[in-house]
Amino acid sequence: MASQAEMKAMMFKYVERVNSGDVQGVVALYADDAVIEDPVGVPTQVGRAAITEFYAGACASGARVSIVAGPFATLANSAAMAAQVLVTIPGKGPSRIGLAEVMTFDDRCRITSMRAYWGPEDITAA
Amino acid sequence: MASQAEMKAMMFKYVERVNSGDVQGVVALYADDAVIEDPVGVPTQVGRAAITEFYAGACASGARVSIVAGPFATLANSAAMAAQVLVTIPGKGPSRIGLAEVMTFDDRCRITSMRAYWGPEDITAA
Repeated sequence: MASQAEMKAMMFKYVERVNSGDVQGVVALYADDAVIEDPVGVPTQVGRAAITEFYAGACASGARVSIVAGPFATLANSAAMAAQVLVTIPGKGPSRIGLAEVMTFDDRCRITSMRAYWGPEDITAA
Repeated sequence: MASQAEMKAMMFKYVERVNSGDVQGVVALYADDAVIEDPVGVPTQVGRAAITEFYAGACASGARVSIVAGPFATLANSAAMAAQVLVTIPGKGPSRIGLAEVMTFDDRCRITSMRAYWGPEDITAA
């Protein structure tokens, strides 16, 4: 089982790689059959090809993540953090999204799921 | 479906009632068959009797919650926040727990589940 410290280290690494636009580096943190639901409620992205496309889009839009609280890690393969994402949204321009992300991990500490909790009302002009 | 604003208002009300030690008031925010998993990984507390017992314990220990980030609310009946809980832990004394809470809601905006993401390493002396 992934330790609390290992999961937290993975989340810091995740943020660092997203912020440097390293799509392949981000995708490499995920397990092959991982699931992304961002935001929670939209259809999930499942597997390496879909996840690669997801982060290619995020990095192309210049997304920059800063951690606001956490990460916090459980004894049950899951961890969470609150973050702020600066991103340019078509039609809206530079925007700030406040959100919480929950991740689960496999025994090798690869991310098996990422679910982001936010909605339209959590977007403000940046 | 509960609106984003309604779910956020419920989370603020939840914090307010926990902080005033209003056990029945907190429990009244939950649906009858709601589930609590706090922290994620421990056996769940299901239903009104178990939830009442859970908050009676939390309030007896003097738990005080402050929101650190959020709440953030999705278009899919769920919302999340990062918080800090000040509580006296037997054998540890006054402690601060950093955590993220994810809640789901029914169509009347009653809480159907609360899952708190934290572990032993998120506890510090207060």
